[in-house]
Amino acid sequence: MFYSLDILGTIAFAISGVLVAFNKRMDLFGVLIIAFVTAVGGGTLRDLLIGETPVSWMKDMTYTYVVLGAAFFAIVFRRKINYLRTSLFLFDTIGIGLYTVVGIEKGIIAGLHPVICIALGTITATFGGVIRDILCNEIPVIFRKEIYATACILGGITYFLLSNFPIQNDIVFIIAGIVVIVVRLLAVKFKIALPNIYSR
Amino acid sequence: MFYSLDILGTIAFAISGVLVAFNKRMDLFGVLIIAFVTAVGGGTLRDLLIGETPVSWMKDMTYTYVVLGAAFFAIVFRRKINYLRTSLFLFDTIGIGLYTVVGIEKGIIAGLHPVICIALGTITATFGGVIRDILCNEIPVIFRKEIYATACILGGITYFLLSNFPIQNDIVFIIAGIVVIVVRLLAVKFKIALPNIYSR
Amino acid sequence: MFYSLDILGTIAFAISGVLVAFNKRMDLFGVLIIAFVTAVGGGTLRDLLIGETPVSWMKDMTYTYVVLGAAFFAIVFRRKINYLRTSLFLFDTIGIGLYTVVGIEKGIIAGLHPVICIALGTITATFGGVIRDILCNEIPVIFRKEIYATACILGGITYFLLSNFPIQNDIVFIIAGIVVIVVRLLAVKFKIALPNIYSR
Repeated sequence: MFYSLDILGTIAFAISGVLVAFNKRMDLFGVLIIAFVTAVGGGTLRDLLIGETPVSWMKDMTYTYVVLGAAFFAIVFRRKINYLRTSLFLFDTIGIGLYTVVGIEKGIIAGLHPVICIALGTITATFGGVIRDILCNEIPVIFRKEIYATACILGGITYFLLSNFPIQNDIVFIIAGIVVIVVRLLAVKFKIALPNIYSR
Repeated sequence: MFYSLDILGTIAFAISGVLVAFNKRMDLFGVLIIAFVTAVGGGTLRDLLIGETPVSWMKDMTYTYVVLGAAFFAIVFRRKINYLRTSLFLFDTIGIGLYTVVGIEKGIIAGLHPVICIALGTITATFGGVIRDILCNEIPVIFRKEIYATACILGGITYFLLSNFPIQNDIVFIIAGIVVIVVRLLAVKFKIALPNIYSR
Repeated sequence: MFYSLDILGTIAFAISGVLVAFNKRMDLFGVLIIAFVTAVGGGTLRDLLIGETPVSWMKDMTYTYVVLGAAFFAIVFRRKINYLRTSLFLFDTIGIGLYTVVGIEKGIIAGLHPVICIALGTITATFGGVIRDILCNEIPVIFRKEIYATACILGGITYFLLSNFPIQNDIVFIIAGIVVIVVRLLAVKFKIALPNIYSR
């Protein structure tokens, strides 16, 4: 079940990459690369930082097939993709929830400090989008708006708080992922943003 | 023979970095760094992804000497470098051919899937230019025009198709490299581009 | 003593990241990330290139605490931070001196060629700022002005020249760091720049 949700996130990230690449009027190859980088970039940086090489997408072909499939779908139905924006937002939100927890687990396996594990989960969930924006010559969107990374961090904190209690690890995993998703949904619904640090 | 052609590619990539850095009016140090990154960036990313560290240019000084030599040459003869543009294009094309095959071979040695090996070859050949463009604050040129990465991919496919036949590995190596070079030359000569995915 | 000076550099780099992020009007999370990346980015790239993973800041929490502390300080006192600019410049200069020597030592331990060790020291000292500028969508400042990387390189050359003499390693370490610092201070004081390679 986790695995198929992880795939939903990969699909959503790939399609979000296609949409950004379209806006920059990239060619077919550029669109595919941006889709790929958006979907696997966060996990790749995570694997590099902890030294787990070759990185995940090089060892498991599922990522490649899913990204290529999602990207071709988005290219073929590019005129209709706007109708999908709400579904995409949901996929993307599920994706960051799952990616966050996967990153945290990898950090725990590598024996890292909880704070570093949370950072690793957040990197897994958000840096695909950061690399996408850098390749498209934009200031990464997560540095400018939306409680996005903050949702990942709150999910990570939940994970470590709950792991002090005698709860089964799979349940902690699920709850932490749900916290990420719910925080993001609430933040977008109620337009909650980080406190403004600039004087008007 | 392969080795000296590889050096030709390194020279061409270094000089192309110098030319882009000139356009941005970078200082001497900036020009040298951009030359270096353009020439070794693709191979460095490849080495990081498969976990072959320290990365190649740290273990073999040839790259450093060749890049510094080519960059100083380009800086000294900067007023005349335009006469060399055709030769540079040829060097660069030979370079991506060689870099593609070197990347594929490294992927095979690391035991990766053929599709991933082709990706690795393409990364080796193209990401030096991508990092160059990012450092110069441009959208990477390979995402916007020219059949460049596509030539690498076609060369990679040729490699794996031919390796099913009882042909000596060195010959397959040479043919795949030649396919990359010929596809690129034909694409530029006949102005062949990827299909336009945008409506006019 | 070295350790606390290293921390001074980390503080200075973190605060310089905060200041650049302010100029881009990033949100709180963006400011913290840019501070972190500026302070640890150079060391992270160094660790990745030589294959020392997990990278340093994942194994030693000091970096995380120092960066978060410095960033919160800079955010809270953001209206007064301008009074600190001279101190910051001094910290930053001490920081590149220390970071350069730390990078060189890591290269020597990894058994690399002196020229590569100097490159590694320079990467450690300067690439945090390069990544900061890329994330902020600017051409990296070190490619455009100031003898900054050049100071690191001169310090590195000093290190290897002196290590041929029967001088204690710690002393060589200190002198090389001081060379970086003094070259930078003199360059800024007397407005020394690299030779202009562009015709007017």
